Amino acid sequence: MNAQPQATPRQITPPHVVIIGGGFAGLWATRALARAPVRVSLVDRGNHHLFQPLLYQVATAGLSAPDIAAPLRHILRGQRNVTVLMGDVVAIDTAGKTLRFADGELPGHSKLEYDMLDCGTLSYDVLLIASGSTHAYFGHDDWAFDAPGLKTLDDALEIRRRILTAFERAEAEADPVARAAWLTFAVVGGGPTGVELAGTLAEIARHTLRGEFRRIDPGSARILLLEAGTRVLSTFPESLSHKARASLQRLGVEVRTGVAVTSIDAHGVVLGDNESIAARTVLWAAGVAASPLARSLDVPLDRVGRVIVAPDLSVPGHPGIFVAGDLATVRGANGKPVPGVAPAAKQMGSHVARAIRARLAGKPAPAFRYRDHGNLATIGRRAGVVDLGRLRLSGVLAWWFWLAAHIFFLIGFRNRLVVLIDWAWAYWSYRRNARIIVGNARDSGTPR
Amino acid sequence: MNAQPQATPRQITPPHVVIIGGGFAGLWATRALARAPVRVSLVDRGNHHLFQPLLYQVATAGLSAPDIAAPLRHILRGQRNVTVLMGDVVAIDTAGKTLRFADGELPGHSKLEYDMLDCGTLSYDVLLIASGSTHAYFGHDDWAFDAPGLKTLDDALEIRRRILTAFERAEAEADPVARAAWLTFAVVGGGPTGVELAGTLAEIARHTLRGEFRRIDPGSARILLLEAGTRVLSTFPESLSHKARASLQRLGVEVRTGVAVTSIDAHGVVLGDNESIAARTVLWAAGVAASPLARSLDVPLDRVGRVIVAPDLSVPGHPGIFVAGDLATVRGANGKPVPGVAPAAKQMGSHVARAIRARLAGKPAPAFRYRDHGNLATIGRRAGVVDLGRLRLSGVLAWWFWLAAHIFFLIGFRNRLVVLIDWAWAYWSYRRNARIIVGNARDSGTPR
Repeated sequence: MNAQPQATPRQITPPHVVIIGGGFAGLWATRALARAPVRVSLVDRGNHHLFQPLLYQVATAGLSAPDIAAPLRHILRGQRNVTVLMGDVVAIDTAGKTLRFADGELPGHSKLEYDMLDCGTLSYDVLLIASGSTHAYFGHDDWAFDAPGLKTLDDALEIRRRILTAFERAEAEADPVARAAWLTFAVVGGGPTGVELAGTLAEIARHTLRGEFRRIDPGSARILLLEAGTRVLSTFPESLSHKARASLQRLGVEVRTGVAVTSIDAHGVVLGDNESIAARTVLWAAGVAASPLARSLDVPLDRVGRVIVAPDLSVPGHPGIFVAGDLATVRGANGKPVPGVAPAAKQMGSHVARAIRARLAGKPAPAFRYRDHGNLATIGRRAGVVDLGRLRLSGVLAWWFWLAAHIFFLIGFRNRLVVLIDWAWAYWSYRRNARIIVGNARDSGTPR
Repeated sequence: MNAQPQATPRQITPPHVVIIGGGFAGLWATRALARAPVRVSLVDRGNHHLFQPLLYQVATAGLSAPDIAAPLRHILRGQRNVTVLMGDVVAIDTAGKTLRFADGELPGHSKLEYDMLDCGTLSYDVLLIASGSTHAYFGHDDWAFDAPGLKTLDDALEIRRRILTAFERAEAEADPVARAAWLTFAVVGGGPTGVELAGTLAEIARHTLRGEFRRIDPGSARILLLEAGTRVLSTFPESLSHKARASLQRLGVEVRTGVAVTSIDAHGVVLGDNESIAARTVLWAAGVAASPLARSLDVPLDRVGRVIVAPDLSVPGHPGIFVAGDLATVRGANGKPVPGVAPAAKQMGSHVARAIRARLAGKPAPAFRYRDHGNLATIGRRAGVVDLGRLRLSGVLAWWFWLAAHIFFLIGFRNRLVVLIDWAWAYWSYRRNARIIVGNARDSGTPR
């Protein structure tokens, strides 16, 4: 990957801003640099921007993968100062101001078969690292294989495959004990993702699959939500946590709080010292860790590996490097850490663009200020919780609020009409259009 | 997989009809047995029926996988005499009237990790084998890895990933020779699938991707259609073959007929004795072979492994076994072999259901009669060829005819509205909604 673009007609080559990661932070920064006198290279491992708040809908077969993703180069096709590059950054040389990419492999071909492609390096004047976060298994990386997490489209398709296959295996299984294990689903972690997954799983088992099996009753499936803390949705006010728990229980989810998962394998989970639960499908929604790229900066990181950034989101000691999104840790005006949610990532991305423009104009970069617009989560088909500070909603009203907000923010995606139709259809009919098993089983247990 | 259902209230257990394969033949047979006094078990390796005529649209990112697939057990949920089972039949014991399934593996887990699941056997009174066909590499199975074919949704997603990744790699490649190889696409085989793939590839390169790259011109991509015979679409009248060729050439496809591919590897193809073409993406649309299940019957097969069935589609010497769809070879009233197309498979499936009902009523099974409704193919965005015997169409009119026919036959699929919208959008805007790279690279070169 040789990134020296052709010389522009201008006499002075504009500075080269490299942005790693095409998520909310990276994409919003890129867009906000549209009129700045810079050349931008946006580098991502994949070819698409993902609307992550709806990823659980792909995992639970409500939406198809292209519904919530759009090619980065399509989104940015009109922004002439941007070059989009698909590549995997593995190291940052801050002294030489250079990124190093993974050795290229032809998709579908092993290194052995192939002459190694030298994807080379990319040099920058200003760098924004927005490579986000990944799952964290709290030192139990061996759990990754039996309890997949939900961060990428591939994760979502893997989870979908496991959920749908579990019901198929239960139907084909003669032994009642083995069948019950196929019909037991354990979701580890009671944050928004865990609550959404458990609620939707209950909806699938009780409604979507009704009448489609001949030997099992999918409605008899047992769905557990396991949370180590004292309540689900711990970032919400306590009253909303209780309402969310009651909604989940009405859907038939067994909510267990204050339970520590001490072991996970292919047969199920162990809670505490000796409570063993036979569950063929275990999903991980318990923790995230920062992208490992932060480590190559050699600056102080917080407990989960995030970069402790300066108020302007630059990296202390490296004025030409910024960090935004889930990879950065910064405090808001109220002294509380800015949460790892999509609106915060967008605001940080836009702020970095402002900081870069200020510096180019010879002005000091402003400090980042987080505007908290509230906190939303959905629970199954017709319940949700909304915390807007003064206004708190729960139940059906919160669900409609959540739906409206997500459809609104999906605008800009090509597929919002298709998503709306899929959703309206799923709502009225309980059907889920994407119940298609694709993809081969993952064959490696290493967490990604 | 223990398939003895609970005893019905009837005194005499109805005969057990087992159908292998949920494609057009198997699904149409299952539906046509709805009111017959039989128990039906429909067994498929996947969980879905696939609308195969539109599979090339998934491969070329026009449609998403769930758009053209529907879960078998959802389609058949109302038919109470049917049990749908997901399983992989590996052998047929005709003496014991029993099927054997592959040893079960938990999705995502290797056999080593797992206690082997005994999926056991399934016994039948009447058997319909409709397991279709797979790619054939004419004795060059080592080509399968570098030249994937298009039969399943996983195949389509793999081809999509390779096509989209090739343009990404070209953009990142500094060396002009290597870049040109990434921008060269060779489609082997000039039948309907090859013509559809080559035409759509040209459309993607010249229109869809226009303006989205900064270092390459995707419109400069070279697309070759390689056919060993003297003309493309050899099952059509010669005049329509010539029109199709002209349409392809107008789209910028290099059509080469009378050329034999003698070698394929990761770097490209070799034609004849010494013409080497550097192409990083090679797609196989040249040949099919019957499902290997036919071999376990120990009856005469034709050249490509299909079962030479009796006029009533039963297997000679095995009156309780029928074969339908791509796995059967039978001659129509005109003495010509019935082609391996969707309408023929549906007709065969329905016929087998009639034959089973006739036998149960003590009557002789009728002979199969193929009604040829015509032959359609599409070429890129606005051209097609239609052969209805007396009526022959080409160009835009044929394309509209093709579109109407396919939308009509998609009816019964949940997603036809979504497909229509995707299509209308793609038509007016040249955009393709499903340009999302998902899935890990295949890591084994064995043909499936």
